Amino acid sequence: GAATPKRHFTIGIDDDVAHSSLRWDPDESIDTDPDVVRAVFFGLGSDGTVGANKQTIKIIGECTDHHVQGYFVYDSKKAGAVTISHLRFGPRPIRSAYLIEDGRADFVAVHNARFLERYEVLRHAKPGATVLLNVEWPAREVFQHLPRELQQEVLDKRLELWAIDASGVAERAGLGRRINTVMQACFFELSRVMPRAEALDAIRRSIRKSYHKRGAQVVEQNLAAVDAALAGLESVPIPTTADGSPRPSLVADDHDEFVRRVTGPILAGHGDALPVSAMPIDGTFPTGTARLEKRRIADRVPEWDRELCIQCAKCAIVCPHAAIRVKVFDASALDGAPAGFESAEFRGSEHAGMLTTIQVAPDDCTGCELCVHVCPAKDKSEPRHKAIDMTPVEPRLARERENFEFFLGIPEIDRTAVQVDNARDSQLLEPLFEFSGACAGCGETPYLKLLSQLFGDRLLVANATGCSSIYGGNLPTTPWSKNRDGRGPAWSNSLFEDAAEFGLGFRLTLDEQAKIARRLLEELSRMVGKDLADAILASEQYDEAEYREQRARIDDLRLKLRALDTPEARRLESIADALVRKSSWIVGGDGWAYDIGFGGLDHALASGRDVNILVLDTEVYSNTGGQMSKSTPRAALAKFAAAGKPTAKKDIGMIAMAHDHVYVAQVALGASDKQTVRAFVEADRYPGPSLIIAYSHCIAHGLHMADGMLHQKLAVDCGHWPLYRYDPTRLAAGENPLQLDSRAPKIPFQRFAERESRFHMLTRSRPETAKRLQALAQQDIDERWNVLRQMAAMEYQPEEIR
Amino acid sequence: GAATPKRHFTIGIDDDVAHSSLRWDPDESIDTDPDVVRAVFFGLGSDGTVGANKQTIKIIGECTDHHVQGYFVYDSKKAGAVTISHLRFGPRPIRSAYLIEDGRADFVAVHNARFLERYEVLRHAKPGATVLLNVEWPAREVFQHLPRELQQEVLDKRLELWAIDASGVAERAGLGRRINTVMQACFFELSRVMPRAEALDAIRRSIRKSYHKRGAQVVEQNLAAVDAALAGLESVPIPTTADGSPRPSLVADDHDEFVRRVTGPILAGHGDALPVSAMPIDGTFPTGTARLEKRRIADRVPEWDRELCIQCAKCAIVCPHAAIRVKVFDASALDGAPAGFESAEFRGSEHAGMLTTIQVAPDDCTGCELCVHVCPAKDKSEPRHKAIDMTPVEPRLARERENFEFFLGIPEIDRTAVQVDNARDSQLLEPLFEFSGACAGCGETPYLKLLSQLFGDRLLVANATGCSSIYGGNLPTTPWSKNRDGRGPAWSNSLFEDAAEFGLGFRLTLDEQAKIARRLLEELSRMVGKDLADAILASEQYDEAEYREQRARIDDLRLKLRALDTPEARRLESIADALVRKSSWIVGGDGWAYDIGFGGLDHALASGRDVNILVLDTEVYSNTGGQMSKSTPRAALAKFAAAGKPTAKKDIGMIAMAHDHVYVAQVALGASDKQTVRAFVEADRYPGPSLIIAYSHCIAHGLHMADGMLHQKLAVDCGHWPLYRYDPTRLAAGENPLQLDSRAPKIPFQRFAERESRFHMLTRSRPETAKRLQALAQQDIDERWNVLRQMAAMEYQPEEIR
Repeated sequence: GAATPKRHFTIGIDDDVAHSSLRWDPDESIDTDPDVVRAVFFGLGSDGTVGANKQTIKIIGECTDHHVQGYFVYDSKKAGAVTISHLRFGPRPIRSAYLIEDGRADFVAVHNARFLERYEVLRHAKPGATVLLNVEWPAREVFQHLPRELQQEVLDKRLELWAIDASGVAERAGLGRRINTVMQACFFELSRVMPRAEALDAIRRSIRKSYHKRGAQVVEQNLAAVDAALAGLESVPIPTTADGSPRPSLVADDHDEFVRRVTGPILAGHGDALPVSAMPIDGTFPTGTARLEKRRIADRVPEWDRELCIQCAKCAIVCPHAAIRVKVFDASALDGAPAGFESAEFRGSEHAGMLTTIQVAPDDCTGCELCVHVCPAKDKSEPRHKAIDMTPVEPRLARERENFEFFLGIPEIDRTAVQVDNARDSQLLEPLFEFSGACAGCGETPYLKLLSQLFGDRLLVANATGCSSIYGGNLPTTPWSKNRDGRGPAWSNSLFEDAAEFGLGFRLTLDEQAKIARRLLEELSRMVGKDLADAILASEQYDEAEYREQRARIDDLRLKLRALDTPEARRLESIADALVRKSSWIVGGDGWAYDIGFGGLDHALASGRDVNILVLDTEVYSNTGGQMSKSTPRAALAKFAAAGKPTAKKDIGMIAMAHDHVYVAQVALGASDKQTVRAFVEADRYPGPSLIIAYSHCIAHGLHMADGMLHQKLAVDCGHWPLYRYDPTRLAAGENPLQLDSRAPKIPFQRFAERESRFHMLTRSRPETAKRLQALAQQDIDERWNVLRQMAAMEYQPEEIR
Repeated sequence: GAATPKRHFTIGIDDDVAHSSLRWDPDESIDTDPDVVRAVFFGLGSDGTVGANKQTIKIIGECTDHHVQGYFVYDSKKAGAVTISHLRFGPRPIRSAYLIEDGRADFVAVHNARFLERYEVLRHAKPGATVLLNVEWPAREVFQHLPRELQQEVLDKRLELWAIDASGVAERAGLGRRINTVMQACFFELSRVMPRAEALDAIRRSIRKSYHKRGAQVVEQNLAAVDAALAGLESVPIPTTADGSPRPSLVADDHDEFVRRVTGPILAGHGDALPVSAMPIDGTFPTGTARLEKRRIADRVPEWDRELCIQCAKCAIVCPHAAIRVKVFDASALDGAPAGFESAEFRGSEHAGMLTTIQVAPDDCTGCELCVHVCPAKDKSEPRHKAIDMTPVEPRLARERENFEFFLGIPEIDRTAVQVDNARDSQLLEPLFEFSGACAGCGETPYLKLLSQLFGDRLLVANATGCSSIYGGNLPTTPWSKNRDGRGPAWSNSLFEDAAEFGLGFRLTLDEQAKIARRLLEELSRMVGKDLADAILASEQYDEAEYREQRARIDDLRLKLRALDTPEARRLESIADALVRKSSWIVGGDGWAYDIGFGGLDHALASGRDVNILVLDTEVYSNTGGQMSKSTPRAALAKFAAAGKPTAKKDIGMIAMAHDHVYVAQVALGASDKQTVRAFVEADRYPGPSLIIAYSHCIAHGLHMADGMLHQKLAVDCGHWPLYRYDPTRLAAGENPLQLDSRAPKIPFQRFAERESRFHMLTRSRPETAKRLQALAQQDIDERWNVLRQMAAMEYQPEEIR
C-alpha cells in the first residue's frame, strides 16, 4: 500500500445505482511484481511524447531480454490535449491488462510544467520513485514553484526529483518545440532500465534510423540534443517543509452544486472516482462550462493597438475560440475598470458616442494567429505591426486576466440596436459558443460561434457525430453557453448517421407544441385578453425587436394564466414558450452530410419543414483521421484515395437546389464574411428548409493554420468554391432564386492546390497523375461555373400562389 | 388418424442438416376436440374469400356462444394468388396456435374450379367431411370432371360433395365476379355452425351493415344473391369408382432433377414436406421456372388478326407478362407447324422475305387487355375490332397451347441483325423475363422484360425489396429466364435499403475480375497468340456483333488455355468470362430510390462506376399497400398523406443531373416506347453510372389497369412527367447534355388528375384542399418546365480532356 491516503482508484467505477460493480480492495493490488519497472508520462497532445514512448518500448524490447508493455490514454481535445503513457518493463511476460495504479510507478515524467498546477501528476508515484519535470526554472527553484499539495506528496513519498529545461535544450539544438528526444534521453538516464552506455547507444541508433530520411542535419541535431539533455539534467534539492501556495481551484466556489460535485472533479482527472449516481439521470449537462477549463495553452496571444484599429471586427469573427471579443458600450460602463483596460471611440454612426474594446481571453486563446493574419490595419511606418499583434502572454497574463474579467461584466449591447446582416455588427452580439477544444485555428468553429451570436437563446442544435460533436460536447464541459438571463442554445448529439432525422424531430416537436399552444391561446383568448392573444398569434418574429416583444408578451401571458384556474391554463402555461420562434439547426461535417447521413439530410430537405442545416465542409473525414468523403475534391489525397481522388467532388448545393423549395447557400468566411452573415440570417428567416455549406479549412488539408482564411479565399478565387445564395422566396416575384456572390474564377485551380499538402504531396509522389487530375479538376470548375452563370441568368415568371 | 396415407405434415419442417427439429408423431394430434368445427377455404386472391371469412368469424362470434379463430395463408402472387383460410369454431377457448392439419377439417370449400387440377384441395378434409365446390358444371357432372386422385380421395374418405355455380349466381345478381356473399351463404347452409334461420338472419344483417354505404341497390343485390345461392346449391352424386384422368403433372418428366425434386413439390403446395437438405446450399435457385406454373387465370386472351395487323409490336412491348410475343423467321421454320398456326409476311425491308407471327401464351396471359388498348390497327368497317381482340380462351385453349409450344421452338432471330434502338425491333428479341406473378396490367414489368430482351445473357440485376423483388423472386419459381444456350440474367435481392450498395458490389467485383483477367491475358499473350489476346483486350463490345465476336474469342481462348499447364492458365480459364462486357443493373421502386435506399443510390451514382439504375416509379409504396413516398405527387392521396400530399414530388432526375457525370433519363413506355428503348440502350453503353426513372402505372393509382398506358401518356402530356435524356458524353463535343424528348405541357394537370382515384377521391372528400393542392401541382409543373426548357438551351464549350 501507498503511504498517502488513496482517494482515487484507477480501476472500476462505483455503480451505486444498479449496484453492478464488483467490490474490490484497493490495497490488494496484483500488480506487485518487484522486478517490473513502471513508468508514467504526462505529455501534451502532439508534443511527441507518445511517439517517443513507443520508440522506447521498441528499444527496450529489442536490446534487452525484458518484456514490454504500453498503454496510452488520450483525452479528446483537439488542441492542448493531455496524453498519459503507462509503460511496464520486466523479465517475465506482463499480464497486467490495466493502467498503472496510484502509488505503483517507479518513474513519473511531467513533460509540461502547466500540468503541475492542474493535475495530480504524482499520484501514480510509489514511495521513493524518481520524478522528472520539464521546467524552465533552475533546479534550486523548482520545489518552491510546486503547489503545496505536490510539495507535500514529494515529502511524504520521499520522491527523488529531477529537472530539465527540455524546451530550452530542444530550442537550442534546433529542434523547435519537439522535446521528445530530450525527455527520452533523460528517462533512460534516470530509470536505468538498461545500462547507461547501452541505452545511449540504442538511442543513438534509433535516432539515426528514425531521422536519416530527413537528412544528416536533423540526425545531428537530435544526437546533440541527447548530449545536451544529459548535461542539463539536474537533481532538485528537497527542503523539509511544504510552504508553497495551494493549487488554484479549477472551479470557483460560487459555482453551482453540479459543477462543484461533478464537473470540477472530472476536469481534475478524477472522473473515475465519481459514483454512477453523480451522472445526470437524463444525460443533460449544464452549458457554459468550457470557460471553467482555462487551459492556457498559448505562449503568445493577440495584443490590441486601439489607435491603429479600424474596428472591422474581422479578428473576432474569425476567432475559432471566441477568445478575442468586441463590445460597444457607454463610457459609464468603464466605472471601476482596471488601470490597464483599454477602449476607443466607436467609429460608426449607428452607435455614435459610444466606446469599443477588443479584448483577448488570455487563458482561452490557443495562439492560432488567425486574427492577426486577417487584420487589415497595418502600421504604414512599420508594416509588421498591425492593430492586432501576437505577443508573449507571460508578462501580460495577470493584467489581461483582470481585463477580460472586467470586459465580461460590461453590459451586452441591446440586440435590437444591431443590424445583424452585417459582418462587423454581428460581432457585437455575445457569443454563446466559446473556448471549445477544437484545433488551434479551426475553420469550423467560427461558423458555430456566429450561429450562437445571431440566434442566441432561440437556437437548437442537433449535431452529427464528428469534430463538431467532439469539441461541442467534450464532457464534462461544453463550449455551448448561455447569456446573463441563463438562456442559451440547446444542443444534442445522437449518432453519426441520424443527425438530420434527429433535428427534424426537434422541428416537428416545436411545430406540434406551437400548434397546441396556439389552439389553447385561441380558446383562452377572451380570458387572457383578446388584444394580447391576437398580438401573440400574429407575431412573425423575423427580427430581434419583434422577438423581444413576443418574449414580453409571453411573460405577460404567463401572469394572466397564473390567475386562471383551468386545466387549459395550466397546459398553456407549460408550453407557452413554444410561441416564441425558435431557430432549429442541424449541424455536421461533410462525412455526415455527403455520405453517411445524406439520406436523412435529403429527407429533412424534402420535408418542407423549417429546419436549417449547416454543413461544416472540410472535404474529408477530419475527426477520424482523414478518410475520403464524397466532398473530397478531385486530385486530393486522402485515406482510401492514396493515388488522389479520381472523381469530382459531389455538388451537394446543386443537389439541394434541385428540390426547388430549399434555401441553399455556399459560404466561406475567409472569402466574404458579409455574404456568410447574410446567408445565416436569410436561412433562419426562410420558412422552409435551408442548407448552408460552409467551407472549413482544416489541419487535414496540410496547411499553415494561421493562413486558413487565406486558403478559404483562394478556394473561392479559383472557382473551386463559388459563393452563392439560392432563395426560393424570390420566385414569388418572378426573380431568379439563384444569386452568385463571387466572381468568375480569377486564378487557376493549380495556384490554390499548390499551397496545400493534400494536393501537392501527390504532385511530388505521382507528378503525371497529379497533373491529369488537376487538369480534370480545372475542367470541373470551368463546367460548373458555366452552368451556374447560365442558371443565374434564367428567366422566371411571377408565381400566382405559394 | 386419417384413412388416407399421410404424406404431408402441416406442422414442422424436417431439419435433416442441422438436426434442430423436434421429433413428433403425425398421428398424435392435439387438435382433436370433437366439439370444434374446422373449416378450410381455398380462395383466389382478391375474390373476397378472406374478407367474407372474417365476416363469418364476426357473425359466429357475435351471434353464438362459440369461440372463434381464423388463420389466413397467402402466397405472394400479385395476380391469381391463392389464399387458404383456416377457421375454427367451438364452445371452449381455442388454443390451437397452428393451421388445421391434414384430415381434420369438417368442411372444405374450393372457391375456384382451377384449384381442383393444381392442388390437393381435399387433404385437410376428415372422413365424412362436407366439401363445397364453386363449379360451372351441373351437379351430376361434377365428379367426372375431378382428377382421378381427388375422386379416389372422395371415395376413400366418404366425403359429401356439394356444388354451386357461384360465379353464375353472382353474375346474375349483378355482383360481377364477387362470389363471396354466395359462398358464405352456402357455408352457413352446409356447416350448420348456427341454426339455419339464425344464420340467414345474421348474414342479412351483416350485408345491410357492410353495404349500406354503397346504396340500396348493392344491398338488394347481395340479399338476392343469398337466396339464389341456397336455391342453386346441389348435392353431388358420388359413383363407386374413380375413373377420371390423372391430375396433369405440373412439372414435365424431362425437367432437371432439382425442378422435379424441389420446385414441383413446392408448386403443388407441399413445400413444408421437403426436408432442409432439399434447399440449395448457397440459396441459388434455377431460373426460367415461372413457365412451369401455367396458372391460366384469364378467361379471355388476345386473338391475332394477321390481316389487320400493322406489325408495330406495341402489343408485345406493353405486355407485362411476356404472354404475347413476336417472332420473325424463315418460311422453312414452319415445317411441322400445327394446322392452325398463323403467320404473315414481315412488313419491313430489313428482314425482307421473312414471316412473322404474334402468338399468345394462353396459360400465362392474365387477361389485362393492355395489348388491345394500345393496338393502333382498327378495322375501319368495324371499329371495335382491332388486330388484337380479347376473346374467350376456353374454345381456343388446346389450339393456342399447341401453337405457343410450336412458336417457342421457332429459332430466335440473329441478335446481330436487329437494330435494337427501335421499339418494334426490340420485340424481336427473346424475352428472358416472363410470366411473373405481378398484377394483371402491371406498369413495371414491361420495363424489366425490355431489359431482359436488350441485354439478355449479359444482364446482372441487384433488386431492391418491393413489388419487383416479390414477383421477381417468388420462390420456388422466378420469371427471370434463360436462352437456348442456358445463359440468362443473374438476379438477386438483398434488402430494401441496400440495393444500390449491393449492385455496386456486383460492379466492383466484375471490374476487379476483368482487371485480373486482363493482366493474366497480357502475361500469357504470347502463349495464347498475340493476335487473339490483342483482339480480346481491344474489344469494346458496344453492340451485339462485337459482343458475339468476343464470346467466340473467349471460347477460342479457353481452348488454347486448356493446352497450357501453368497456374496462370488455370486462373485465367476460371475468370475468362469476365472479359465479356456485362450490363449491371440496380432495380427498385420509388420507395427504395427516393426514400429508403436514396443514400446508397446517391453513393452508387457518385462512385462513377458503370452501374445502371432503373427506378420503377409508381409514386407510392405499392408492395406494402400504398404509403406515401417522396415520389408521391403533390395533391395525391396515400397512406400518411390522408389529406393529400402537401409537398411537391422530389425530382430525383434533377438531383442525379447535379452529379454531372451521370446519364439520366426519364421515360414512360406508354408515352414513347421509342424514347424508352433508346434510353435503355444509351444507359447500357454509357461507361459511367446511369439512372432511368420509369413511370409505372399501378393499381394503387386507382385506375382501370387496361388503360394504364393511356395514363402514362396523360402524365407526359400534362407535363407531370417530362421525358428527357441527359447524356454527359455530349459534353465532350460542347453539346448540351440535356435533350428534352417531350413537348411543352398540352393539357392541364387537372385533366390527368381527374382520371385517377388517388387524386379525385380528394376532390370528393375535400374539394377546397384538392383545388389548392392541384393548383400548386400545376405551378410545380410550370416552374419545372420553365427550368428544363432553359437548361436544355444552355451553351457549352467542348471539353479538352475526359
